[in-house]
Amino acid sequence: MSDYENATASQARFYALRLKPGQDVVEELRKFVDANKLKAVSIVSVVGSLTRALLRFANTGVWSEVTGHFEIVSLVGTIDVKGEHLHISLSDRTSKTIGAHFGVGSAVYTTAEITLAEFPDLDFRRELCPQSGWEELIVDKRQIR
Amino acid sequence: MSDYENATASQARFYALRLKPGQDVVEELRKFVDANKLKAVSIVSVVGSLTRALLRFANTGVWSEVTGHFEIVSLVGTIDVKGEHLHISLSDRTSKTIGAHFGVGSAVYTTAEITLAEFPDLDFRRELCPQSGWEELIVDKRQIR
Amino acid sequence: MSDYENATASQARFYALRLKPGQDVVEELRKFVDANKLKAVSIVSVVGSLTRALLRFANTGVWSEVTGHFEIVSLVGTIDVKGEHLHISLSDRTSKTIGAHFGVGSAVYTTAEITLAEFPDLDFRRELCPQSGWEELIVDKRQIR
Repeated sequence: MSDYENATASQARFYALRLKPGQDVVEELRKFVDANKLKAVSIVSVVGSLTRALLRFANTGVWSEVTGHFEIVSLVGTIDVKGEHLHISLSDRTSKTIGAHFGVGSAVYTTAEITLAEFPDLDFRRELCPQSGWEELIVDKRQIR
Repeated sequence: MSDYENATASQARFYALRLKPGQDVVEELRKFVDANKLKAVSIVSVVGSLTRALLRFANTGVWSEVTGHFEIVSLVGTIDVKGEHLHISLSDRTSKTIGAHFGVGSAVYTTAEITLAEFPDLDFRRELCPQSGWEELIVDKRQIR
Repeated sequence: MSDYENATASQARFYALRLKPGQDVVEELRKFVDANKLKAVSIVSVVGSLTRALLRFANTGVWSEVTGHFEIVSLVGTIDVKGEHLHISLSDRTSKTIGAHFGVGSAVYTTAEITLAEFPDLDFRRELCPQSGWEELIVDKRQIR
């Protein structure tokens, strides 16, 4: 039998918000999720621009700050009660595109339009995975909606 | 109290469409949104390819046309009754990826498979933001569904 | 009259899953879709990392294997009963981002957190398109939910 049989299918509730110049994307997402008591969130779409981002490039343990003017051309990931796992790609004035793990420490340039899905039938949490060595996503069926 | 408390949670209706060779992605999205009287749309996913795109790179006021053969590797943004805010990233035959603000003036190469969410409990509109100097997204609760 | 009038609006059911080190993203998506008898799926968001990917760059008929350590910074596309159409963008330790058509043959590095939407009011299938020369997505109204 497949591990995947009878996976929990969830309904969803959707939210849309716009961030303003100077705001920190990850901090604002955290405030939004906390204020609305969301527990299992997926990014749907983010369009906007940044003047600063704190990025951790693949397989490096260190954070790099990039500054300039960047279009957000993708932002993907999940958010739970305690944390989030977000990756972003950013394009500059020459069209060059960079990407990385995305953390607290960004600043919106003009705007960030964010649409989110909350899954009321699921709970997201993270637990140390012995295979990866990181706290990784666990998807549970939510007991109380 | 957080600005974010009691944010409006919306249901969603989903649409899927395929564009054909030669079609203009933004023009077709506009026609689709108009024909179905959608008012608060988020891109969910777009996969496809282009032979031409009209792009505005970060923090430049000018549009650049790129031609060739490109895979669409991301397309993000929102669509309202009057306009849209879309960013795209495109990869070429060497895998090089560029990204930018995406406007009318593209041509589909082989296909563009698009999934959209309409939020019937929200209204999207844009209003001049004194902080950014651009018309920016305003999210309202929809009065009549 | 527009071709787009009265497009079928669908409800959606959502799924979230986490892949483990060494798993093949496309193979696992296929197993998940089959096990849950899904018929019209859109990727919502994927965040994670790979050590290997099989990519087909734009307008090349050939597959290239890339190896190293990559952050998944976007993954877009649709999945039907028989196949899938997926594009991916990947960033390396220098932040450089590449993108392409994404096939079977990848290996997860640390994790891949995937959220999916299934549209129970739609059927996805693919049929040879004389204009593109490829099997392309057809969206039908689902007859039996």
